[in-house]
Amino acid sequence: MRVVVYGAGQLAQMMYLAGSPLGIDVQAVDVNSDTVVHPVSKTPLDIPLDEAIEGADALTVEFEHVPERLLEVAAQTNKLMPNIQSILVGADRVREKQLLQSMDVANCEHQVVTHLDQLDACVDALGNKLILKASRDGYDGYGQWRLSDESELPDLKKSLQGLDLEAVPLVVEKMVNFDRELSLIGVRNAKGDIRTYPLAENLHHQGQLHVSVAPATNVDSELQEQAHTIFTKLAEGMDYVGVLAVELFQVSNTLLVNELAPRVHNSGHWSQSGAVTSQFENHLRAVCGLPLGDTSPLGPSAMVNIIGCSSFSRELLSIDGSHLHWYGKSVREKRKMGHINVTTQSYQQLGEKLMALGQYLPLEYFPKLVAEATRLKG
Amino acid sequence: MRVVVYGAGQLAQMMYLAGSPLGIDVQAVDVNSDTVVHPVSKTPLDIPLDEAIEGADALTVEFEHVPERLLEVAAQTNKLMPNIQSILVGADRVREKQLLQSMDVANCEHQVVTHLDQLDACVDALGNKLILKASRDGYDGYGQWRLSDESELPDLKKSLQGLDLEAVPLVVEKMVNFDRELSLIGVRNAKGDIRTYPLAENLHHQGQLHVSVAPATNVDSELQEQAHTIFTKLAEGMDYVGVLAVELFQVSNTLLVNELAPRVHNSGHWSQSGAVTSQFENHLRAVCGLPLGDTSPLGPSAMVNIIGCSSFSRELLSIDGSHLHWYGKSVREKRKMGHINVTTQSYQQLGEKLMALGQYLPLEYFPKLVAEATRLKG
Repeated sequence: MRVVVYGAGQLAQMMYLAGSPLGIDVQAVDVNSDTVVHPVSKTPLDIPLDEAIEGADALTVEFEHVPERLLEVAAQTNKLMPNIQSILVGADRVREKQLLQSMDVANCEHQVVTHLDQLDACVDALGNKLILKASRDGYDGYGQWRLSDESELPDLKKSLQGLDLEAVPLVVEKMVNFDRELSLIGVRNAKGDIRTYPLAENLHHQGQLHVSVAPATNVDSELQEQAHTIFTKLAEGMDYVGVLAVELFQVSNTLLVNELAPRVHNSGHWSQSGAVTSQFENHLRAVCGLPLGDTSPLGPSAMVNIIGCSSFSRELLSIDGSHLHWYGKSVREKRKMGHINVTTQSYQQLGEKLMALGQYLPLEYFPKLVAEATRLKG
Repeated sequence: MRVVVYGAGQLAQMMYLAGSPLGIDVQAVDVNSDTVVHPVSKTPLDIPLDEAIEGADALTVEFEHVPERLLEVAAQTNKLMPNIQSILVGADRVREKQLLQSMDVANCEHQVVTHLDQLDACVDALGNKLILKASRDGYDGYGQWRLSDESELPDLKKSLQGLDLEAVPLVVEKMVNFDRELSLIGVRNAKGDIRTYPLAENLHHQGQLHVSVAPATNVDSELQEQAHTIFTKLAEGMDYVGVLAVELFQVSNTLLVNELAPRVHNSGHWSQSGAVTSQFENHLRAVCGLPLGDTSPLGPSAMVNIIGCSSFSRELLSIDGSHLHWYGKSVREKRKMGHINVTTQSYQQLGEKLMALGQYLPLEYFPKLVAEATRLKG
């Protein structure tokens, strides 16, 4: 079997590595050049894109911002999984909010803004602590702004003045005082079978995921069930095939959907050594029409992202249960270079191993590690 | 880091898949054409062999019958791991027996035969139940003969008449009435660190491995320790770096070494999903000078070889904990096409899952499966 993945980054690479044992050949598309490349070496495969599409059993994506012209061609083949609507929902916060509303899935209170004058009404409706998000790519990397007090409104408007809000609207959300950020990774195949992984707790720093712990601590069966129900509603409603990541805020005993990612997700990387079947294998099983794999955890696990740094001691592999996943990219500030998975027998042991890991890493690049290790050690 | 593997079969392929996450690029050498190829696609990489050797951090082998001319060139670089002596020991039963004797490691009683007349003395010394093994490749696939009674001796001599026994001697062993066949997979790095996996029990049919169960049932700590001690003696004595497989006969509470394989081994494939670190990752960690990974088992596992058949239902993946490893080769009689790993929580569960597996497989190709499933179910 052959699967063509739009996008040629680490997610396509890890799909390739998960697919190969199953006899699934994964090819990647560099969407900047429409070139079909080897997902690991990135070497061009000397196959025109249309031939690769023709030869594929399934087409899928490693990120939601694939140019629409490519998605449309892919969708016409009826081999694109997940379907184009699901991918576009992930790429556009307005569509995403509309979907969540239409399915009656709890999410953050919000308004859509296409003109700066509407911001005053937002403050009236949602209060004076707001988070403004560009609905799509398009503002050259600028995507989020905050309002902490009404007095900041004039300055905020000034900084937004150049933006074409009719082309790329803002989604303005009431800032939620959440207890923590969780995510649910799940998978659905075309037959409608569904499997969800245990909830992961995600620690962010400056907008980037740094550490995931899965199964998240202090999750009772009701909370896990609540997440499973949200996933099922969404995946069935979207007629979704593949892995879907649902980012959540926990507020007391309630889960609010923050964001959807129509693909394998960084907060599911722990499953490579921490679950019976990894998210990458399960995504491929789903899009290839194979039975889904067991999503049970093998023990408390953590995923630690390596961001913006390439120099650290490989002696960290002396920590039993640690596995390095290196993406082979040149280093850049804030770039995800790789990750480390650690799977253990208890949360206390996980804390101890994360603490040990800290001794091999330049901690300035791992701002969440020591505090989380300390918390888990108890 | 880069590792060049002599041999371009499934073992090199699985090394590539295990190395990629660690940032280790594995290249394979097709030793029939001296061509450097991609270990998965087998596509030539357009790199002359000497350049590949030059660019490698380590050279290793996926099988012991690499032409000596290639091994000698590799050894001269001081990058070949395991060392050339260890590889040659694996390729030559006379050297192997000499090594075992010199290290005082228990093995099967035997004599080396370079002339047919010596066979009578063998019968006198070892009895009339013998197994005769060609010491090396060289008899066009014919490698083993048996003597069950002295009366068969004249016929046996006749069938051996054409062989050049001075060039390729026979190792004549007393047939051992063993209880079962086990193997120990272990790994040593250049610093001298050693890790061994739990003993696996191996079920053969017509000279081919069909099923491994690991950890083997009914292994007490003394038996495991005995195997570990044998491994340590051998690996240290050979100054071995990498994964070494030791095939053993269990006779009551004693282990006899049957054969050594200086490489990752089919009876260690279960470690891909049944141990914290797979034998493939550990081999690469060893030859690259990285810390060795944890060899602890994750639960009772089985490895089922798919031999000589390519047509079966992929619905077998619906068995939780099952993982398919498909090598992507064209089907031939007796050819290893792939394997299935199953990891579980108990031997009883393992038996049940193997029984379920049997429902998806053409059982004529899996002669050991149902009996073993029945035994494990208890």
